[in-house]
Amino acid sequence: MNFFSDIPGFDEELARAGEKALELTRDSLCRQPLTEVLDAVFSAPGKMLRPALVLAFGRFGENYPDCADPLTDTAAVVELIHMASLIHDDIVDDAPTRRGRPTIQSAYGKDMAVYAGDYLLSRVLSALVRPGMSAVGQILSRGIGDMCSGELSQYMAQFDLNADENRYFMNISGKTAALFSAACEAGAAVAGCSPDVTAAASRFGHSLGVLFQLRDDLIDCVPSDREKGKKHGMDFTNGIYTLPVIYSLSDTECGPRLRELAGRAPAMDCQALSEELYHLIDKAGGIEYTRWIMRQYSERAMGSLNLLPAAPVKLQLSFLLEALLNIEEGKL
Amino acid sequence: MNFFSDIPGFDEELARAGEKALELTRDSLCRQPLTEVLDAVFSAPGKMLRPALVLAFGRFGENYPDCADPLTDTAAVVELIHMASLIHDDIVDDAPTRRGRPTIQSAYGKDMAVYAGDYLLSRVLSALVRPGMSAVGQILSRGIGDMCSGELSQYMAQFDLNADENRYFMNISGKTAALFSAACEAGAAVAGCSPDVTAAASRFGHSLGVLFQLRDDLIDCVPSDREKGKKHGMDFTNGIYTLPVIYSLSDTECGPRLRELAGRAPAMDCQALSEELYHLIDKAGGIEYTRWIMRQYSERAMGSLNLLPAAPVKLQLSFLLEALLNIEEGKL
Repeated sequence: MNFFSDIPGFDEELARAGEKALELTRDSLCRQPLTEVLDAVFSAPGKMLRPALVLAFGRFGENYPDCADPLTDTAAVVELIHMASLIHDDIVDDAPTRRGRPTIQSAYGKDMAVYAGDYLLSRVLSALVRPGMSAVGQILSRGIGDMCSGELSQYMAQFDLNADENRYFMNISGKTAALFSAACEAGAAVAGCSPDVTAAASRFGHSLGVLFQLRDDLIDCVPSDREKGKKHGMDFTNGIYTLPVIYSLSDTECGPRLRELAGRAPAMDCQALSEELYHLIDKAGGIEYTRWIMRQYSERAMGSLNLLPAAPVKLQLSFLLEALLNIEEGKL
Repeated sequence: MNFFSDIPGFDEELARAGEKALELTRDSLCRQPLTEVLDAVFSAPGKMLRPALVLAFGRFGENYPDCADPLTDTAAVVELIHMASLIHDDIVDDAPTRRGRPTIQSAYGKDMAVYAGDYLLSRVLSALVRPGMSAVGQILSRGIGDMCSGELSQYMAQFDLNADENRYFMNISGKTAALFSAACEAGAAVAGCSPDVTAAASRFGHSLGVLFQLRDDLIDCVPSDREKGKKHGMDFTNGIYTLPVIYSLSDTECGPRLRELAGRAPAMDCQALSEELYHLIDKAGGIEYTRWIMRQYSERAMGSLNLLPAAPVKLQLSFLLEALLNIEEGKL
């Protein structure tokens, strides 16, 4: 079940992309030591939102449905890029679980996680250097480069209570929006959309990605919910100051209290920390401000969507934007 | 100064490849956080043996010198792949220094090293998806996949005193020989060599790479030299059992003593450990056996070299093989 399930044939295409992603990791001999690790990755599939965007934008061009095979390949590669980035991000975040299962780094060690991510990247490379994939390769390689520099920049800003909004938007544009943007653009390019339409697809993906990350960051600021097993305030504890926090840090009353909380955070109980954090940034207007910025990005994305030709998938894309404005539904 | 300096124009080509590698990492905006890290990597260049092999094999084909530009690009990409792998290997090895300078992971943390390596891989990808690079891309992407699985397999065999020779050769074929082999093959392919010659280039690179690693592993088994600042026995201490050790473990007298030494190694002084280690494996014949295997690989490489057409670079390649049989000269 995904946002595009109502579109005839979509779920089948997405399932094929998932199978193709697995197949791409299996195309060599002597990979025995990897099999166990990769099985662990593939046994807990995510929502496959990024490959779904490739397929959705593939519906806007006149090459569709003839381009179904390269579209599936592209969607599969996008999923592998996402998986590789999750494996490497978990090393940096020291995350114990992902999608309800132990992360590679917690189950097999950081070292294994480094190589498992690299191996997936080598499979991405191998898929993209095949004849006919050059255009998609250029779009996705730019996306990967932007992801790395966004992650690096975020890492270097860690625990910096003077980080500003510009830096924050630069970081999330790289670490999150770059792959969303590249996925939409690659789908449109494979389907033979005009340069104007392909550029609009890329901009849509960028706005959608920023909105997606803003939502994630906002959710991390609401109080933890012990009953539902939801642990929040993790970004703040880890020194990753997101938009609601950055905005509130400049509040004359709450700012100094937030700075003081940042010092105490690592030693605090997660429930108490998240409640105090929410109280402060809500009071400073950080929640309301972030919601307002989210609406701006949703409108920007709608603006790009309006430039795209008519297609049934357009309605679903607007539903996706709407759903992202709602933070009650949990992680998407 | 390298093995090919006598060949007219070679040093200039190699210098251009080095500049190109740096340029490839600089082609985007907003890379500020990376600049400092990458400068640290590029400020301590290595011997550039792998890119030199690309250029050397580029001299065997009839496209040379017309193919000088794609050859330079290929050599630059090979150097970036090597650098990315060194950065990620240092994470796993917890290495404090590399080429006499602090490693990325010791200077900036493991997290930075993960992303810096990924960023270099994204630049590799970006260079290989350009039109006309598909053939080289396929050769090098296979090489990268083999490197990852070799490293993973070695990591999984760590501290396994029952690891056998087959596993060892599989591991070093991946982690080291795969890139040597891909470099030689890619150079020959760019230069338009026939499939037979290109295959011989690949086999030469494989034998050379295995020889290179055997030599490195043998050097790590000779006693440390405190005066010259050479610390040996590190592989053994880290649970990476190389050919001289694996061979000696089956010796009825020295085997049990080596197993016992493995348990004590982490707590031992480096000088004392390396002397005891050398004494045991020398007595068990592990040194002599490894030297014999090295000569086998050198002869295999010579056999492949003989299948290549006449070119001045052939003589230099045979000198390189000879030099690798001598472990007195230190790291190459």
